[in-house]
Amino acid sequence: MISPEHTASILVEALPYIQRFAGKSIVVKLGGAAIDRELDRALAQDVLLLRSVGVRCVLVHGGGPQVNAVLNRVGIEPQFKDGLRVTDEQTLEIVRMVLVGKINRDLVATINKEAADEPVAVGLSGEDAGLLTVVPVDPELGFVGDVSKVRAGVLANLLDDGLAPVVATIGADASGQPHNINADEAARAIAVAMGAEKIVYLTAAPGLLEDVNDESSLIQRISSEELRGKIESDSVSAGMIPKLRACADAVDGGVGTAHIIDGRVPHALLIELLTDRGIGTMIKRSADW
Amino acid sequence: MISPEHTASILVEALPYIQRFAGKSIVVKLGGAAIDRELDRALAQDVLLLRSVGVRCVLVHGGGPQVNAVLNRVGIEPQFKDGLRVTDEQTLEIVRMVLVGKINRDLVATINKEAADEPVAVGLSGEDAGLLTVVPVDPELGFVGDVSKVRAGVLANLLDDGLAPVVATIGADASGQPHNINADEAARAIAVAMGAEKIVYLTAAPGLLEDVNDESSLIQRISSEELRGKIESDSVSAGMIPKLRACADAVDGGVGTAHIIDGRVPHALLIELLTDRGIGTMIKRSADW
Amino acid sequence: MISPEHTASILVEALPYIQRFAGKSIVVKLGGAAIDRELDRALAQDVLLLRSVGVRCVLVHGGGPQVNAVLNRVGIEPQFKDGLRVTDEQTLEIVRMVLVGKINRDLVATINKEAADEPVAVGLSGEDAGLLTVVPVDPELGFVGDVSKVRAGVLANLLDDGLAPVVATIGADASGQPHNINADEAARAIAVAMGAEKIVYLTAAPGLLEDVNDESSLIQRISSEELRGKIESDSVSAGMIPKLRACADAVDGGVGTAHIIDGRVPHALLIELLTDRGIGTMIKRSADW
Amino acid sequence: MISPEHTASILVEALPYIQRFAGKSIVVKLGGAAIDRELDRALAQDVLLLRSVGVRCVLVHGGGPQVNAVLNRVGIEPQFKDGLRVTDEQTLEIVRMVLVGKINRDLVATINKEAADEPVAVGLSGEDAGLLTVVPVDPELGFVGDVSKVRAGVLANLLDDGLAPVVATIGADASGQPHNINADEAARAIAVAMGAEKIVYLTAAPGLLEDVNDESSLIQRISSEELRGKIESDSVSAGMIPKLRACADAVDGGVGTAHIIDGRVPHALLIELLTDRGIGTMIKRSADW
Amino acid sequence: MISPEHTASILVEALPYIQRFAGKSIVVKLGGAAIDRELDRALAQDVLLLRSVGVRCVLVHGGGPQVNAVLNRVGIEPQFKDGLRVTDEQTLEIVRMVLVGKINRDLVATINKEAADEPVAVGLSGEDAGLLTVVPVDPELGFVGDVSKVRAGVLANLLDDGLAPVVATIGADASGQPHNINADEAARAIAVAMGAEKIVYLTAAPGLLEDVNDESSLIQRISSEELRGKIESDSVSAGMIPKLRACADAVDGGVGTAHIIDGRVPHALLIELLTDRGIGTMIKRSADW
Amino acid sequence: MISPEHTASILVEALPYIQRFAGKSIVVKLGGAAIDRELDRALAQDVLLLRSVGVRCVLVHGGGPQVNAVLNRVGIEPQFKDGLRVTDEQTLEIVRMVLVGKINRDLVATINKEAADEPVAVGLSGEDAGLLTVVPVDPELGFVGDVSKVRAGVLANLLDDGLAPVVATIGADASGQPHNINADEAARAIAVAMGAEKIVYLTAAPGLLEDVNDESSLIQRISSEELRGKIESDSVSAGMIPKLRACADAVDGGVGTAHIIDGRVPHALLIELLTDRGIGTMIKRSADW
Repeated sequence: MISPEHTASILVEALPYIQRFAGKSIVVKLGGAAIDRELDRALAQDVLLLRSVGVRCVLVHGGGPQVNAVLNRVGIEPQFKDGLRVTDEQTLEIVRMVLVGKINRDLVATINKEAADEPVAVGLSGEDAGLLTVVPVDPELGFVGDVSKVRAGVLANLLDDGLAPVVATIGADASGQPHNINADEAARAIAVAMGAEKIVYLTAAPGLLEDVNDESSLIQRISSEELRGKIESDSVSAGMIPKLRACADAVDGGVGTAHIIDGRVPHALLIELLTDRGIGTMIKRSADW
Repeated sequence: MISPEHTASILVEALPYIQRFAGKSIVVKLGGAAIDRELDRALAQDVLLLRSVGVRCVLVHGGGPQVNAVLNRVGIEPQFKDGLRVTDEQTLEIVRMVLVGKINRDLVATINKEAADEPVAVGLSGEDAGLLTVVPVDPELGFVGDVSKVRAGVLANLLDDGLAPVVATIGADASGQPHNINADEAARAIAVAMGAEKIVYLTAAPGLLEDVNDESSLIQRISSEELRGKIESDSVSAGMIPKLRACADAVDGGVGTAHIIDGRVPHALLIELLTDRGIGTMIKRSADW
Repeated sequence: MISPEHTASILVEALPYIQRFAGKSIVVKLGGAAIDRELDRALAQDVLLLRSVGVRCVLVHGGGPQVNAVLNRVGIEPQFKDGLRVTDEQTLEIVRMVLVGKINRDLVATINKEAADEPVAVGLSGEDAGLLTVVPVDPELGFVGDVSKVRAGVLANLLDDGLAPVVATIGADASGQPHNINADEAARAIAVAMGAEKIVYLTAAPGLLEDVNDESSLIQRISSEELRGKIESDSVSAGMIPKLRACADAVDGGVGTAHIIDGRVPHALLIELLTDRGIGTMIKRSADW
Repeated sequence: MISPEHTASILVEALPYIQRFAGKSIVVKLGGAAIDRELDRALAQDVLLLRSVGVRCVLVHGGGPQVNAVLNRVGIEPQFKDGLRVTDEQTLEIVRMVLVGKINRDLVATINKEAADEPVAVGLSGEDAGLLTVVPVDPELGFVGDVSKVRAGVLANLLDDGLAPVVATIGADASGQPHNINADEAARAIAVAMGAEKIVYLTAAPGLLEDVNDESSLIQRISSEELRGKIESDSVSAGMIPKLRACADAVDGGVGTAHIIDGRVPHALLIELLTDRGIGTMIKRSADW
Repeated sequence: MISPEHTASILVEALPYIQRFAGKSIVVKLGGAAIDRELDRALAQDVLLLRSVGVRCVLVHGGGPQVNAVLNRVGIEPQFKDGLRVTDEQTLEIVRMVLVGKINRDLVATINKEAADEPVAVGLSGEDAGLLTVVPVDPELGFVGDVSKVRAGVLANLLDDGLAPVVATIGADASGQPHNINADEAARAIAVAMGAEKIVYLTAAPGLLEDVNDESSLIQRISSEELRGKIESDSVSAGMIPKLRACADAVDGGVGTAHIIDGRVPHALLIELLTDRGIGTMIKRSADW
Repeated sequence: MISPEHTASILVEALPYIQRFAGKSIVVKLGGAAIDRELDRALAQDVLLLRSVGVRCVLVHGGGPQVNAVLNRVGIEPQFKDGLRVTDEQTLEIVRMVLVGKINRDLVATINKEAADEPVAVGLSGEDAGLLTVVPVDPELGFVGDVSKVRAGVLANLLDDGLAPVVATIGADASGQPHNINADEAARAIAVAMGAEKIVYLTAAPGLLEDVNDESSLIQRISSEELRGKIESDSVSAGMIPKLRACADAVDGGVGTAHIIDGRVPHALLIELLTDRGIGTMIKRSADW
């Protein structure tokens, strides 16, 4: 059992953070792996607890593995080019069904089950109310888009109404044609558009490691400039690069701090936000240190 | 070309309706057939035009044929009992993916393509923010629910924000378990909870016919009491009964009028709302004549 | 009888105009001739219908023929100089009594008779709440003034309260002395001060004609620059010149468009505002085409 | 010169009244005689000063002598029956022109001339926005009406906008036909409908006298019950009876107090409202003493 | 160092309390002893932290020992009767100077020193804005009063303005004469009038003890009915009785819970409010368990 | 008895001032002498009457003589240096107790006794909510401060709530240490920070005299420039200099006018504010004449 002194010290430490984050926006990106293991109750609880003290949380998710599973089931072979999914019309229909009709639904359901009084989670895709407008990335990739515009007011209105948005990363281009979007990028675009205080990437690693083979070599703080240097220098794993670039772009785009934290630690989000030492890797602009 | 006199007479006729419906809510149910033929541009235009003069439109849709098509594609044989779909866990997952991830998406996209300035359609399932709470209908049917509670405020907030909600008829029970819901019934429950001015069922018929084989035998007006008499008397086709019962229940539950109109006539919704003679069959409480 | 298709097409055409004009101000000037024939029910209906969908209509009227009739009755010979009424103290008293106490009253009464639920027309003279401040035009004309200031807020407050102002064109100078004002000019000054969307002159002609003897030579659109050219070139009738100049001044002063339409066509105002082809002549700044 | 002590005592006395009347409504009726002598600057000043400290003043006026003068001028012989003007269509047109187009105008102009910054007076007739609805009194009288309904909100909105309404006592019946109204009665009806704090009748006498031949026999306070007794007992002059009955009806209808004061004393209104001893005769319900 | 798991568990535990108390009022009474040891930084911090997450804290204090010290210094012998201070005019002046001009000042200063950005503490006596109206207790006691009325709106306005009120327990009777008030009673009256969620008495004991000589015999929870039984039964120390009675009266008067906690434990207030187990003794109505 | 004409003339004179000062702030400084004679009922009445018509009055007071009396009573010899009180820690404690706990209390009580409906006076010291922040004047003077910052919003909020603030001139420095402040200076700082319309110094003289020995040599108006000349020229009594400098600084700092008036004349404040001739000496910037 924790002594009253320790309890008091944690509360005295947490309360200023609660005050500071009240009314601020936080965008949380769930990686595919995290979702594969099912959004555990702890994350849903964290979102609800933070919401209860006025933090405006937006969850953004992708869902690569689940899409592949359904594609295989209906007899379509997933195709990739330079790590990006080649998305023809038939594939897009499946991607959209899985992201919007399955993964998004499951996240909404998990949060609503944990909500004490009444359900608060609302699922959205980027098509809803023009949340995410895209431009095509590359004709060879088919219906894959980069975010060109975010209508952050859609999320703001939902948050003002006390709801918790969960966003599936499908968007429409100017003609209304749906496209698939990389979820790390979509989360960044949303965070920048909202003027978010933080963007948090939940991953299956402790954070950014100095030595990818040594989990104890965690880099706790790094500036966006240093991070861009690292990306150039090949000292980070290729798979991590899009996420790291999204972090650097987010803080350079005005987000207060970006975080890569370990989604495998229960309540990692709460610990990151409400304690002095945090958890994982924090990225900030040099100018903001 | 229409003469100025005729033009003026139509406008003089329409303007009082526009004033009368401004700020009022209208729930429009699209039947499976209508959707099969694709929501044409005309309906999307009607919703947008009505919205532009202050009418608060909510679209509700089902999607039986489309669900069956996907079930067949993944090798599941659709099962029915007394006309209701037997919905086990695997079936439910498919139903949800198709309704939320495909049909709802397509309707949202069609409306957003027609919107002049910015997209306004927002897709929702009854699980979002606890919009539709259900109780199971019958253990033998599996995850099929009757609506026990509607959080109409969720729709009101979206409408207040200038958005056009499109609702897929999935709901969660008290434990958070998703269930499939009959779309005619879901539309009625939503209309009653919103205190809607009108509920409009778009069908593939001119309305309620005195003689089902004679399209010219349209019943233009009928009271809910008379309608219930007809339902009991077997003088209507079995397939029409759930819809007719929903109409009677809607007006007895406080909705101003219920309408069964021909979804095959372009702009049927606009004609119904803004002209003296209307179109199709109107159901009203005797006390309200 | 008009077919559903035609009905729908007119409604589809009108609704965007209704949305566009909702909340906008329209100033309508009634010429003496129009009033001589009595404000027909159609114009009162148009004002009420437009008001019901949020258009903010202000009626402005003069009343030359009626003033002459009363002057003759009390044994005063009307005097004119360069087409403007010479207005001594005794004449002014009669002008004011006729405009404010008779014509304005009759217009208010006609609108209020047509109003379904409750009377909404309110008569005002430019003296009320300092609506129109004037400076004397010419000592030889006596109490005839040009508008130097408009307190548009007076009209805005009435419109905000849901009322329909009808303005008689008497104003006071800085010392409080009443003056007679040319009604075409007064209407223009009010429209400019309100930032009106449109100013509409109801006349006893189809609009501006290329050939004054040929009603089929209607000029449908003309820029204010071209119009000023025409005024200089003597190709228009002398009687029309003040009205044309007021139109050019109005649009150059910020009013969206000016219109000269045929007050003899029932519902001309409604047709002008809510159909694509309009009616009569529209004047607009070149820069706004 | 008044000593500081006296000055202070008057201010100490007046300030609580100012606080008490701030935001309250006062209806002031001007008799024909008062108007004959022209609304002096003092009354206009009183209205403006009271308005400046938040009192909501409404002026109501008749104008019998002036109407007769114009009727004579156009060769119509005024007709009366039991002291009420017989009002045929032609007479009504003159009555309306004189009350609305002349007397009301002159009162508005006088107040606006005294207003320091900007004109605040607004003239209204009972026809405007349905302010006064009437029912005909007697077929033999022609277009003479009793007030059956007052839309006090019209005045409230003008007062909220900082304006000072001046009301001419013409009203319309349910069909929209204008009628002449007795001004004492119209003032009472307005005061009751507004829930006025006071109704003040400005007359050419010191108030109600015990002995009509002795101006020193002023009755300072009397209950409505006692007043009704006096009216029955013939101890008051016949000409005073309608005014006295209006006073009794006003306070029994909820107006705080009614006052008959001497309009010949400059600033009589100010003295009545802001000093302990008042001026003239005050009528109050017994229950309110 | 506390593990992430423990940290998370404390935060997960505290957050629902923070949400629950946000916007609620808490009255905290400081006993004389507590003040004698000076309000430590911890209490000031607790008040500020709770305020930062929306809890509306009001501090109430007495100051018996300090009053005695000043009385002695100016040569007045403190007099008591049945434990209450006999308060003549000269004594009252000293009591008021010490409570309002010294103790209250010191508390305000301590809180303001801890406030990060700007001072928020505001000192009040019950005389200010009529906060506490009293009736005399007993002529023999002189100027000692019982609270008969609390203007809780005064505190509400300060709290709405983001300030932290600190109340010295002097009040005025209906004639404006100041009186001394028992601080335990004053705190209760304030808490009841505010509809406070909690009243907390900080004392120099762990709470209410079963055996006054055994600090380990703490009673953690007791109903107001049971507490009243204990008071009657003489099983509690005489000195504790007024405080216990105030606790019972507070909860029976509508305050959610009353607490007697150990003011000697740093951050006792925070621990009481934000942890499941609390600290000290909680009193609640039986009906509320 | 004053005639109706005189009464009317005073009211006609006063009402524009009432309108002009409504919503404006007035800071009134009471000198020690004034307080020695007790704040008479007249001043309390003036404050309440002015408040009743919307004037926002703030009273500021010092209390030198009373402090000396208490210091003597507890055996401390008052020390002065260049006319300023040497304030060690023990003296400060007494000063604070007397100003905040006695004089301020007595003023609050006097106003509240005069208030008709409910108490409105609220006592504050400059420590409350950081109202007055100071910097030390001179180490040899001990805890004596000059005002460096005023949180005028604290007073504005109280005034918005309908309360009448009474300010004791103690302030805290940046570290939270209390200091004594010269009351003339504190009043000036508050008036400047509030953007007050007037600052009024109540003194025991008729105002600024040309010849200090001749009360009839009152200077009624003087510009701040001329006043600064007078201060330099030694033509004014040394004791008056701080007050005169505060007046010049106030108007140069943006206060409309400063006034030195005779606190011995009952209702001097009311006469000054609401009559044309005023009372005492008015100081204004040359640029504002």
